[in-house]
Formats: sequence, structure tokens, C-alpha cells
Amino acid sequence: MDANNLRIDGARLWASLGEMAGIGPGVAGGNNRQALTEADGAARRRLAEWCGALGLDTAVDGVGNMMVLRPGTDPDARPVAFGSHLDTQPTGGRYDGVLGVLGGLEILRTVHDLGIRTRRPLLLVNWTDEEGTRFAPPMMGSAVHAGATSLDEALATTDDDGTTLGAALDAIGWRGAAEPGAQGFHAYYELHIEQGPVLEAEGIDIGVVTAAQGHVWLDATLTGRESHSGATPMGLRKDAGLGLARLAERVHAIALAHQPDAVGTIGRAILHPNSRNVIAGRVEFTVDLRSPDAEKLRAMRSLVETEARAIADNLGLGLEIRVASDVPPVAFDPERVARVRRAAERLGVSHRDIVSGAGHDACLIARVAPTAMVFCPCEGGLSHNEAEAITEEWARRGTEVLMHAVLAEAEIVA
Amino acid sequence: MDANNLRIDGARLWASLGEMAGIGPGVAGGNNRQALTEADGAARRRLAEWCGALGLDTAVDGVGNMMVLRPGTDPDARPVAFGSHLDTQPTGGRYDGVLGVLGGLEILRTVHDLGIRTRRPLLLVNWTDEEGTRFAPPMMGSAVHAGATSLDEALATTDDDGTTLGAALDAIGWRGAAEPGAQGFHAYYELHIEQGPVLEAEGIDIGVVTAAQGHVWLDATLTGRESHSGATPMGLRKDAGLGLARLAERVHAIALAHQPDAVGTIGRAILHPNSRNVIAGRVEFTVDLRSPDAEKLRAMRSLVETEARAIADNLGLGLEIRVASDVPPVAFDPERVARVRRAAERLGVSHRDIVSGAGHDACLIARVAPTAMVFCPCEGGLSHNEAEAITEEWARRGTEVLMHAVLAEAEIVA
Repeated sequence: MDANNLRIDGARLWASLGEMAGIGPGVAGGNNRQALTEADGAARRRLAEWCGALGLDTAVDGVGNMMVLRPGTDPDARPVAFGSHLDTQPTGGRYDGVLGVLGGLEILRTVHDLGIRTRRPLLLVNWTDEEGTRFAPPMMGSAVHAGATSLDEALATTDDDGTTLGAALDAIGWRGAAEPGAQGFHAYYELHIEQGPVLEAEGIDIGVVTAAQGHVWLDATLTGRESHSGATPMGLRKDAGLGLARLAERVHAIALAHQPDAVGTIGRAILHPNSRNVIAGRVEFTVDLRSPDAEKLRAMRSLVETEARAIADNLGLGLEIRVASDVPPVAFDPERVARVRRAAERLGVSHRDIVSGAGHDACLIARVAPTAMVFCPCEGGLSHNEAEAITEEWARRGTEVLMHAVLAEAEIVA
Repeated sequence: MDANNLRIDGARLWASLGEMAGIGPGVAGGNNRQALTEADGAARRRLAEWCGALGLDTAVDGVGNMMVLRPGTDPDARPVAFGSHLDTQPTGGRYDGVLGVLGGLEILRTVHDLGIRTRRPLLLVNWTDEEGTRFAPPMMGSAVHAGATSLDEALATTDDDGTTLGAALDAIGWRGAAEPGAQGFHAYYELHIEQGPVLEAEGIDIGVVTAAQGHVWLDATLTGRESHSGATPMGLRKDAGLGLARLAERVHAIALAHQPDAVGTIGRAILHPNSRNVIAGRVEFTVDLRSPDAEKLRAMRSLVETEARAIADNLGLGLEIRVASDVPPVAFDPERVARVRRAAERLGVSHRDIVSGAGHDACLIARVAPTAMVFCPCEGGLSHNEAEAITEEWARRGTEVLMHAVLAEAEIVA
């Protein structure tokens, strides 16, 4: 068999994506299939049934991560793992996470159809609670697998109703016996939609993900003096809103000054009292800074803090800044990144190196196994939105690149 | 009698202000005495009782404006009117409006005590619904008196429960028989707290109010593209929040460029979806522009609109701007303004010319009678707030300036 000719069944993959979208439908064409709800349970059962039809059993670990092993010929080899997550945002799309899992299923179906044997086992994974909307924080299952979060801590996490994650697992019958992390990986590959606009804007089919941005999230408050907008002369104001405006411009400039791939965003701001004729006495806001370069990320944060202080002092405002989250960048394994790139080249699809702006299970798994990611485009960069959309062609090409990287890693046995 | 020596009883005024503050108390030391509530009715009864003790009857017009006439010696002379309003914001202070009414009462008490006769009648007014919080818009009673709003329109105004202003007047027994506006004024004077920080900051006792700013209120929306803050490179963003930030800086600069007395404020802004990791796809906000100079106000508005368009175009944003309110400046009557200034000089209190940034009943009455205003300081410029505060000394001096201006206008009969 000439491995270069291996292709998946794009129509079958697309049909499975459509069928999965029927489980836990949203209100606007997407999905509401939050982690460990009944809908998540149903999605898991469907996946296990599909794998069962290939003669493959599903193992489940203590935090509910699903692992479907297809044995290799070498009894000593650790599996080449691939997958993503089936849970969605409350108003989520059909492809975020789902493509990585069902693309992995399509690989298992393809090797099954063709009777392909591999030296290393293949392992399809569905990680528990990637989205973190019902049970925060996100990437819970992969964090437990990677040892970043303890099993006990994860199981004790509660949703808004006070239900623990452990109880929710039991309620849908997906608390397994396997010890999280006990199943080691030879390598891990994850296919995901880009969730950004770059690939579509450049007309490129495949993103070879070299790294995931680290981020620093700041929660900040500027405090001025609430006063009448008509009766307070410009020179006697302490306008917290003006302070925010100045800092927003600086955050923008700082991100531009730390290219490539750096971003800076003030996406959330609440003015007090937020009234037409009252000067804002207080503004609470967030700053989101990201870069794949840890050094640059530190420099950006430091500059933002310095400039915020200068702006506040200049306007006579009080300033408080608190770090809400500080996640270092992840550099994916160069050898596996190169394998993804070679797979794209072998298949003749256009590709470019790209940095992931979002967090993924792969960022956690990279701590315990050599890891790489494959991106496919999504329309308008839209994600975490029921209108999220990809084409059948994008899904097929992404899955074929994933398959070629995985099979090269697993080594086809003639 | 040497009129120059005339003084009020500051302690009596202060006690009356304290007693009035007991009617419709707030939750934090101020007042919740909104127009035409039971508390407003009780405040009106107290005022009428106080005037009755001086032998003065209270007339009430069809919109509830209270008018207390003290006859003059000249049967053909029209009265010199003075007053303000007893209604408050839902979390209002003890002095906004109240000082003008009870300062006027103190004048009536003083001339009563001393047996002073005036050629022109004196007329104390309590205007209905100045605050406009229960029944919008504000300055309802003075607008009806001035013919700016018809009586029928005012009476048909409804509160949040659907009660009409007419029904609310009936419920508390304050719908009167007099035709609004039928009582003409020779002149009108209004004492009010500044509601701004200028007088206190400069250590000055009296503001001689030469004009009231006009304002243009804009409701605007900038529309960009909601997208992931991590996955959307700086160059592919349409960040409505950044557009708002740039416009806020320009509004500030435009106000500074149109001094004296011009102000520009963005006090209200709502980002959508207002999430830490989503670039704002839409921002709704207000712009409040004010100037005592109609020409400059027009220029400011035009500049803001031009710059908003340029900012939006530069960032690829959509822009909509709607005028929510457009009120021209009011120049008070120069002769009456000079009378207030002379009163302050005669009394030896520090004074400065000032422009009112807020709207007042006097702005409406200026359409039908020569009008002027007297400001006294308030602590920190704070108003529309239960913590609103003035000193007994400020109240006394403001009332004495009002009295001297009023009596000079009314002409003391020897």
C-alpha cells in the first residue's frame, strides 16, 4: 500500500459531524452540549457506539476522559494519541472540539476499512470538560491527565447548582475506573478549527500550529470622582472613563510593538454609574495580553502596568491591578510540528505555520507527551457561537493531514 | 431702615432645611421625595403651613406649582418671584432645589419680622417636578408656566406604573385651579447650590450665574466584529472598543479647545458582549457636549461627528449617531445678573461670574421673565446624591444675596 494515497471518506465524516450536531442542539443551528449534561452523555454514547462498530472498546478514566485504543503490532509501543472534546459552549458551534474527535474517529474508520496495521497503537481521546462553562476552569480532563490538576480537586468542582463534577459524571454514567494519566502517549496530535480569521483570510487550508500563546489576564479598576457632566469644568475632573480610553490606546500600541503574534485587548469594561450626565467615577475593566514568546509577554505586561500607572497619575485617578490568570506560552514539539508540516506537503494542501491564540487540551498534554496541532479554517474566524461554520472540504483536508501525521508516527506495518 | 444691614436668621433657615429633610428621608442621610409622591405632598403642606404662619396664602396652578404672594404697595406692579423646587432625586440631597424654596421662605419671614413693605409684591414659588425622575422630562412645572409644555401634555405624562401626573396631583390634593403662567413675573430669581466644584475649589461664596449651558446629547453606536481576543491578530480586528477609546480622547480635546466653560463627556458606554476574551463587536455610548455659546456648541457637535466618522472609517467600524437632546444655551438677563452681583458686593461676600452646567427652572422662566440665578458652593461639587452637603454659612450667604437682589428689585417702601 502506498500510504501517500491514503484518503478519508469526507462525506462520512461530514455526516457524522451532522449527526453529532443533532445531540444537544442549540437554538440557532449550533449546540448547547455542556460538559457532563445529559446531552454530553448522549454524545459520548454515540461515539462509543461508533467505535464499537469498528470492534473497539472505550476505556474511561476517573475524570471521564474517553480513550479508544486500537492495538498496534508492537506490544511494547505506547500509543499515538489524537482527539479533542465533544462538549460545547452553551451557545457553541458544531465543530469546536467535535472536529478533532470525529476526525479521529474517521481515521479509525479508514484504517479499519483498509485493514491497515500500525506498529504503535492508535488512541482516540475525548477529553472531559474542555469548555469549562458548567465546571470551571476549562481543559479539566486534560489537566487531570497531565497532572496539572488533581483528580480529587476536579471531582469536587461544582456547577452553579452546587452539583460536583464527580456527581455529574455519576449521573450520566461516565465516571470510569482507569487512573487518569496512567495511559502514557508516545505522542499526541489534535485537529481543531482555527477559531481565528487568519487561514480563511489568506486562503490557506492548513495551519501548522507551532505554539500556543501564553496569556496574562489583568483585572483592573480606575477610580476617579463621580461628578456632574455639566457642572464640572474640564480642569476639575477625575474622569475614570478617560483613563480607560487612554489605556485602551496604549494596550493596542503595545501589542503592535511586540509582533509577531502578540495581541492585546480590553474586551470588558463597566463604567460607574454609567450615566449620560455623570463623569465616570470608577471603571472596572480587563486587559488580555497574549504572545507565544514568554519574554515578550512579560515585557508587554510590565509596559501596560507602567503606562496604566502614568495615565492614572496624570489624571489624578486611583489604580488597582490584579492578575486574574497567567498562563505561559506552549511551544509544541518541533519534531511533531515538522511531521504535521510534512503531512500537509505530502498531501499537496496549502499550509502555513500559525500560533494558537486560544487554549486547547493539547496545551496541557504537551506537558506529558510530545504534542502538535493541526488547524483548519473556520468562516470569519467565528467560534464560541452557534453560527460557527466550516466547509466539508476544510474538514476533510484537516483530517487527512492529521491522519498522515498520526500514521507516520504510528508506522504502518506492511 | 438701612437696607444694607438687612440679614436673615441663618439658624432658622438651617433648622427649616433640617426639618424639611425629615420629610421623605432617603436611606443615607439625604432624601427620596420624588415629585407628587406622598412625601412631596407632605413637604408642600409644610411649606404652606410655614407661609400661613406669616399670614400668606398659597395659590396652586393646574400643574401643581405653588405660589405664595406677599402683596406690595403698588396695586399695578407685577411680583418679583423667587423660588425653586422641593422634589428630589430618588437618592437626592437635602439642598438641591430645597435651598431655593426655603431661602425664599426665609426672605418672607425676614421681611415679616421687620415689617418691611415693598412696592412690588414678593412671590415665592415651588415648581412642580423639577427632577423629572418619576415623571419625565425634568422642569415640568416651570415648562408649563413658560408655555414650553402644554398643561394637557404635562398632565397626561405617566410614571412607570402608568399613573398620570394629573392623577398623581389629585391623589395628593395638589392640583390647583389657577391657570399656569397666568401669574406674570416682573422678574425671577433662583438660589441654588452649584452642583459643581468650582466655588468650593476657589474658596468663593457666591456664583453670579450669567448663563446656563446649552447641551447636545448624542446616542451613538460603533459596530465592529466580535471575535476571539486570542485568535484574532491585531491587523484583522474591527474593535469597536478601540473606536470608543479614540473618540473619548477626541471629545476631551474638543471640549478643551472650546473654552471657556465648554465640557464634553462620555459617561455611559456599554460594550458587547463585554467579555474578557472577546473583541467588542459593538459599543453603545453617549456623548454629552455643553457650552454657554450656541455657536461653539454647534462647532463642537460638528467636530465630534466628523472625528467619529474618521475614527470609524480608519478602524473599519460602522457608526450611527442620533441626537437625544438639543437644548440651546440660556443667557440670563444682564440687568438682573448685575443686580445679583451688586447684592454680593454690598454684602461684602466673595463672588465670581459662573455658568450653570445643569438645567434649572430658571432656564425655562427666562423665556417669559427677566431672570437671574445665585449659586452657593456645595461640598465636592456633589449633587444628586444623598451625601450632598453645604454649610450653614453658605446657605445664609446665598440667601442674603438672593434677598438683597429681590428687595432691590421689589423696592423697599420707606
